[in-house]
Amino acid sequence: MLSNLTADRPTFVTHLECSMTGERYAADRLHGLSRAGRPLLVRYDLDAVGAALSREALTARDTDLWRWRELLPVRHTGNIVSLGEIETPLVPIPKSAGPNVLVKDEGRLPTGSFKARGLVMAVAMAKELGVTRIAMPTNGNAGAALAAYATRVGIETIVFCPEDTPEINVREIAMQGARVWRVNGLIDDCGAIVGKGAAEGRWFDFSTLKEPYRIEGKKTMGLELAAQFGWELPDAIFYPTGGGTGLIGMWKAFDELEKLGWIGSKRPRMYAVQASGCAPIVRAFEAGEEHAERWEDSHTIAMGIRVPKAVGDFLILRAVRESGGKALGVGDPAILKAVDDCARRDGLLLCPEGGATLAAYREALRTGEVDEEERVVLFNCATGLKYPMPAAPQTLDRHAAIDFDAL
Amino acid sequence: MLSNLTADRPTFVTHLECSMTGERYAADRLHGLSRAGRPLLVRYDLDAVGAALSREALTARDTDLWRWRELLPVRHTGNIVSLGEIETPLVPIPKSAGPNVLVKDEGRLPTGSFKARGLVMAVAMAKELGVTRIAMPTNGNAGAALAAYATRVGIETIVFCPEDTPEINVREIAMQGARVWRVNGLIDDCGAIVGKGAAEGRWFDFSTLKEPYRIEGKKTMGLELAAQFGWELPDAIFYPTGGGTGLIGMWKAFDELEKLGWIGSKRPRMYAVQASGCAPIVRAFEAGEEHAERWEDSHTIAMGIRVPKAVGDFLILRAVRESGGKALGVGDPAILKAVDDCARRDGLLLCPEGGATLAAYREALRTGEVDEEERVVLFNCATGLKYPMPAAPQTLDRHAAIDFDAL
Ligand SMILES: Cc1ncc(COP(=O)(O)O)c(C=O)c1O
Ligand SMILES: Cc1ncc(COP(=O)(O)O)c(C=O)c1O
Repeated sequence: MLSNLTADRPTFVTHLECSMTGERYAADRLHGLSRAGRPLLVRYDLDAVGAALSREALTARDTDLWRWRELLPVRHTGNIVSLGEIETPLVPIPKSAGPNVLVKDEGRLPTGSFKARGLVMAVAMAKELGVTRIAMPTNGNAGAALAAYATRVGIETIVFCPEDTPEINVREIAMQGARVWRVNGLIDDCGAIVGKGAAEGRWFDFSTLKEPYRIEGKKTMGLELAAQFGWELPDAIFYPTGGGTGLIGMWKAFDELEKLGWIGSKRPRMYAVQASGCAPIVRAFEAGEEHAERWEDSHTIAMGIRVPKAVGDFLILRAVRESGGKALGVGDPAILKAVDDCARRDGLLLCPEGGATLAAYREALRTGEVDEEERVVLFNCATGLKYPMPAAPQTLDRHAAIDFDAL
Repeated sequence: MLSNLTADRPTFVTHLECSMTGERYAADRLHGLSRAGRPLLVRYDLDAVGAALSREALTARDTDLWRWRELLPVRHTGNIVSLGEIETPLVPIPKSAGPNVLVKDEGRLPTGSFKARGLVMAVAMAKELGVTRIAMPTNGNAGAALAAYATRVGIETIVFCPEDTPEINVREIAMQGARVWRVNGLIDDCGAIVGKGAAEGRWFDFSTLKEPYRIEGKKTMGLELAAQFGWELPDAIFYPTGGGTGLIGMWKAFDELEKLGWIGSKRPRMYAVQASGCAPIVRAFEAGEEHAERWEDSHTIAMGIRVPKAVGDFLILRAVRESGGKALGVGDPAILKAVDDCARRDGLLLCPEGGATLAAYREALRTGEVDEEERVVLFNCATGLKYPMPAAPQTLDRHAAIDFDAL
């Protein structure tokens, strides 16, 4: 586990690039959005990566996230921060989804969600680039991951959550050494506060896609899938889409792997799954738009995908379209039913966002959008333990006579 | 990840053996306790294992629990049940414990605790041996793991918890398809109900150490440690001890590895950590007893180690003594302080039982029982997310003027 953290490495980053205009930015400098107000993408010298690292050498390494170091931006080993970013397992759920569906169980990562992937990278880079104070808007999981890693490297952190963020997330953030505030609004209202403070120079803005490195961390989901599937990708991926970092990151990963010659040109169809109570990407997809308008009055139990407006909307839509996938909306009742079903029949407790991908898969199966022979991956991006579960109130009095037949 | 589950394997189990009298029992039969009322231990033909498997071949396999298949009891691959039992990471906590201490973070396993190791094995064997109905007393985590795996293979499950078991555990058990009852009593009161039903032939008794295979699953903690430390063990292990399965299992693992010639005769000092409000093993250790009397009026926030009476008491005490370790008690305030410190300074949220090991380590350092140069492993047996955390009530009104200096 620790071997990938201590080995010295060269870095292969050449520059950063505006995802909209292609304008170049220097590596090793602190950047937020591009001048066009869009996310920056990190670019690597992939020929040099290919010369330095073979698929075989990669496969021989320990399987944690840092095995991918040549495709990651951290320059100095000493800046790496880690809480044990394991490769997450693929869990079959045959009874609730059929024989060819695997759940990528991201709840096993530090702080119980895939946000650890993005934040471990962003925090390591913040340390490398001298950041001392970070602020972030969060629906919960990203804030918890930020707090853990920033605490670990001694960066001061201030987090803003919508007022109805689950209590457990808010407490976890506070426990892990960040200052946390509930705000009477949604995630983009919290984002506005962070933006204002950043404009005043009070802190560095860690909102989704507003700094370039979270996407590099999330990219490892795609890298791992390729390795886990023996360098052939699944036929379809269902991803619960809020800000969309993970989907954009995986799409970037596949591209880099193809340029390395490690995979071919075949891509999974990418399904961006949203809750029908907050589905800006679905609406834009269906209308054939390149950008997605803000979704008003959003509501869903799947808090992680309650994102009314995503700064990387065009990147999500582009990946979905290029892949031949779709953006799909599912209602809260279908989400709850999927979570319940998967736990009750396959023993796997999904988070609501993970439930959304199962619900969307079922619907896609019904409409013939996917075939049950196809190899499918559903993303469960957080542990189900962070979410409310129905009460189980049965009690038994041990002093009374026990009716064993009734148990 | 899946390769270890599909490869066919021979089994090397020769027989089972009473841990007290050495009396032999046949493999491939359903067993509870031995005739002497003690736990049964599974024995292997280790010469044959050594001939079939080298350390190098082992190391080349995927790192999940099933890589150890030759040292595990499941005979038929088809009986394996899995939710993705990864190798758990070792996480340094330099600020709260010093540079040579690693936390084995067992909260990353399915259902968020190390109970998954024992139960995945016990359920696979129950399936192999034709069990159709299981009951279990639990402080929470074991019940959740049982529910998940039993549901997955379609075995009916009934679980009894002390009335003050955390709500999240009870709900998790119910969600995952088991029937669950809160009982006005402690874990051994729940155990009595399970025992009564088992005696009436209503179900199979899955209490800690009352069936022989949980220990085999828990053994993998010791096997993993050996592999992770490059076949040299750490100097000391701090283990939060309730029923003691994990400690007994690790001790058995080291023995088998030595017989295989994979490790030498050096052993870590084993520290059995208990809460001072429920410390039967500590009391027996200090009194030089071979068995531990029931602890009356037990209380501690670390529910997983609130076990007043352990059926494997003599096995725990024997391992601790043979290793040159000790049984150590720590108070709830020290536990809470350790949890808080580790989260706030190292960004790692321990469960209270994990906090107990950190508290015990600190005390052992203070008394000179361990040296800060020594390589130490602390077991964090469950995710901290399953436990209550202090409230974090700060709110911010986005419609009012924000005082950024006060954030
Ligand atoms: C559990 C969960 N799933 C999905 C998402 C959406 O992730 P992304 O921002 O990559 O779209 C989030 C984000 O908070 C989340 O917490
Ligand atoms: C979190 C946690 N730690 C420690 C223990 C004690 O484990 P053992 O029975 O192996 O002593 C338990 C058992 O419930 C637990 O849940």
